Amino acid sequence: MSGFPASAAMARALDEARAAALRGEVPVGAAIVAGDGTIVAAAGNRTQELNDPTAHAEILAIRAACARIGDQRLVGHSLFVTLEPCAMCAAAIANARIARLIYGASDPKSGGVEHGARVFSHPQCHHAPEVVGGIAETQAAALLRTFFAARRLR
Amino acid sequence: MSGFPASAAMARALDEARAAALRGEVPVGAAIVAGDGTIVAAAGNRTQELNDPTAHAEILAIRAACARIGDQRLVGHSLFVTLEPCAMCAAAIANARIARLIYGASDPKSGGVEHGARVFSHPQCHHAPEVVGGIAETQAAALLRTFFAARRLR
Repeated sequence: MSGFPASAAMARALDEARAAALRGEVPVGAAIVAGDGTIVAAAGNRTQELNDPTAHAEILAIRAACARIGDQRLVGHSLFVTLEPCAMCAAAIANARIARLIYGASDPKSGGVEHGARVFSHPQCHHAPEVVGGIAETQAAALLRTFFAARRLR
Repeated sequence: MSGFPASAAMARALDEARAAALRGEVPVGAAIVAGDGTIVAAAGNRTQELNDPTAHAEILAIRAACARIGDQRLVGHSLFVTLEPCAMCAAAIANARIARLIYGASDPKSGGVEHGARVFSHPQCHHAPEVVGGIAETQAAALLRTFFAARRLR
């Protein structure tokens, strides 16, 4: 998978992750790209700011993209996110019928794609996107490491 | 589990499910109850109305309850829902640190609690609520059956 180019969308997701860190949020960012390559939505984690445990970057980006295109299904769209989605976000990606999921760092602790619930691997999941992991992994993981190291020092 | 009383909260969840059906939404309803027995939020499914694949009853109720109490964690709260939560909602319940999940009908097709992803059963899930299923199951399942039967006739 290392040959897959770190795209403008993943660069945007990383920007959203950095902006989240500056707000004191766990630095995860996401961007959604339409079939024609347009970035239709991007968001960073805002759980603290919004007092909303569902306000992960992926959920906010999905809601924004759906609002923008006026459809609850993002057929043909790709979601780029800096960290392996948790089970909540993975299932939201399935519910939104997103065609392709591209993520950065793997998340053995809380991930729900290649770890734990492995949301896409059950018949109760009615749509499984194509999944590409490890894109811009180094930058994404470094952002998280720096953030949590700084919090431990406080 | 059949001795567990169908409470006012489940009655409220059923009301929300009926109201969802009248809006043309899949009839699922949820209510969240604080430790003192107060219903702090209730919602029905609004995915069609809001063009939002995350707007399941549970997610809307969690977001409303968190906004009301000003906290992203619903410690000590119970969530009542008419249908077994999907993986997205189960993981949101875990993320919100809800103490107890009480649901009506089992959902072998899309459920993520006792089926498929079994979200609460993995170490990547950092909080597992107490789970009670089969409460008001007959009414909850009848609502769904009636709704889908009517849709097939159209």
